[in-house]
Amino acid sequence: MSFSVTILGSASAKPTATRHPSAQAVNVHEQYYLVDAGEGVQQQMIRTGINPLKLRAVFISHLHGDHVYGLFPLLSTLGLYGRRTPLPIYAPAPFGEILEAHLRYFDRDLPYEPEWHEIRTTKHELLLENRTLEIWSIPLRHRIPTSGFLFREKKPPLNVDKFKIAKYDLSIAQIAAAKRGEEVELDTGEVIPNAELTYEPYRPRAYAYLSDTARSPKAAGLAAGVDLLYHEATYAAAEKKTAAQRGHSTTEDAARAALKAGAGRLVIGHYSSRYKDEEELVAEARRLFPETYAATEGRTFTIEKRR
Amino acid sequence: MSFSVTILGSASAKPTATRHPSAQAVNVHEQYYLVDAGEGVQQQMIRTGINPLKLRAVFISHLHGDHVYGLFPLLSTLGLYGRRTPLPIYAPAPFGEILEAHLRYFDRDLPYEPEWHEIRTTKHELLLENRTLEIWSIPLRHRIPTSGFLFREKKPPLNVDKFKIAKYDLSIAQIAAAKRGEEVELDTGEVIPNAELTYEPYRPRAYAYLSDTARSPKAAGLAAGVDLLYHEATYAAAEKKTAAQRGHSTTEDAARAALKAGAGRLVIGHYSSRYKDEEELVAEARRLFPETYAATEGRTFTIEKRR
Repeated sequence: MSFSVTILGSASAKPTATRHPSAQAVNVHEQYYLVDAGEGVQQQMIRTGINPLKLRAVFISHLHGDHVYGLFPLLSTLGLYGRRTPLPIYAPAPFGEILEAHLRYFDRDLPYEPEWHEIRTTKHELLLENRTLEIWSIPLRHRIPTSGFLFREKKPPLNVDKFKIAKYDLSIAQIAAAKRGEEVELDTGEVIPNAELTYEPYRPRAYAYLSDTARSPKAAGLAAGVDLLYHEATYAAAEKKTAAQRGHSTTEDAARAALKAGAGRLVIGHYSSRYKDEEELVAEARRLFPETYAATEGRTFTIEKRR
Repeated sequence: MSFSVTILGSASAKPTATRHPSAQAVNVHEQYYLVDAGEGVQQQMIRTGINPLKLRAVFISHLHGDHVYGLFPLLSTLGLYGRRTPLPIYAPAPFGEILEAHLRYFDRDLPYEPEWHEIRTTKHELLLENRTLEIWSIPLRHRIPTSGFLFREKKPPLNVDKFKIAKYDLSIAQIAAAKRGEEVELDTGEVIPNAELTYEPYRPRAYAYLSDTARSPKAAGLAAGVDLLYHEATYAAAEKKTAAQRGHSTTEDAARAALKAGAGRLVIGHYSSRYKDEEELVAEARRLFPETYAATEGRTFTIEKRR
């Protein structure tokens, strides 16, 4: 029941010899979700041991090239690998047109269907849901329509305390009722409240990805309570004006977002190529939010299960 | 007066953790020419110390993604770097349409002009010429229209032998005439043949790039006399049938092309991902053509000047 985020790219628009453009792989219960797909993402997946065929869906925050150029080669290679399952791709408009042009010129015979799902970037809404996970959009403030993403585990089914099963000699039917959250009436007529019999096996975990964006307390609010928050920090605090002009954030903006969200940990990234050492940016953010860490290629942040 | 080829990508369609898709940088007299542009080429240029801003022109052999996907991110980044000079791009049709779609969706405000020049892939013709270099197309045999490239230094201006200048006490005007290849009449009326006064400073050098292609003696013939030949060798000799079916070559096809061309050295590449160790492929080719070398990321092949 893993929940982790692997950084595939930490650069902003200009890559460097070691920093790749934006991409992350989110692993929830061994289902992989790709968040942004900067150039080279397929190779970065191979390097970090993530099988591209295991991708469940792709989420593109916005249509600046450094967040999406790696998707098209990946689509081609998945075809060569023989993927058959449709691949849902969540992205703002006009991604559908871009995808169509790509397929027309490069991938006419793809053996699977890339399925575009439009993200309405002004809405906070549920994009994808399965048995254990919800993925929500979070409107961001950038130069073009942009959406962040919230990955939130659903409440897991209740566990029934084995000592209580023995104590009250519960039947299979009574255990099932307890698991469903119901109270249980014993053969004696005594009614045992559900809370006495059951416990949550773990607290649902959550991760939010906020990039690219200028300072947005609203977005931070929508990420309230996440265990892990990724927030871009393209610039150092001194470059506040440049950041705001270009629809980006500083280290301080990222730290304040983490404070506002009450996040467990903050990961910063999308560093401007002018910063050779990201630890300087981390140090700045830590003054406001001590639990700040650097996104670096191949680094995995795991959210452990907690009761 | 350098003449060298740096391998930026040696993989075929599926990249691996270490092998990038096809791309090479050809340096002729410190002018850089990009030959194919697989995904990640801009980062590979940075890693090998080649300034992307120094690119004089781009040559795309064919419109399979693994030879061109890296061009679009490169175009964007050159815009961010502030390139102003138009960038000539030689590629087969319908590259113009693809470029137009790219510019429409991703690069509306590029500060320079990417200029498409159509390659007619059935012709062997001069694509680009400057004071010291000619670049020719070479028709190849692949699944879609594909062209190889021949880089050929022009004959350099003649040097006048300084001992002969002293011996005949040549004037500036007489030296200039000798440099132009003319005979020289001395004040005594004696006529000195040009060959006695001058020598070629170096033999013009040449490089041919043949990829992707099935076995093509005709293409090899058009590369006659090159100092360095790059020929794809996607497959080992045993996979001859698969190679032919897919419009690719084996190690033996590559070696035979080098023999037919009378090449100085052969570089093979575009390895199928099934081959973990390219040295096995090189060993196979060497049985027929001993001067065979492996294309590996970052390796530079220099053609030295010779008299």
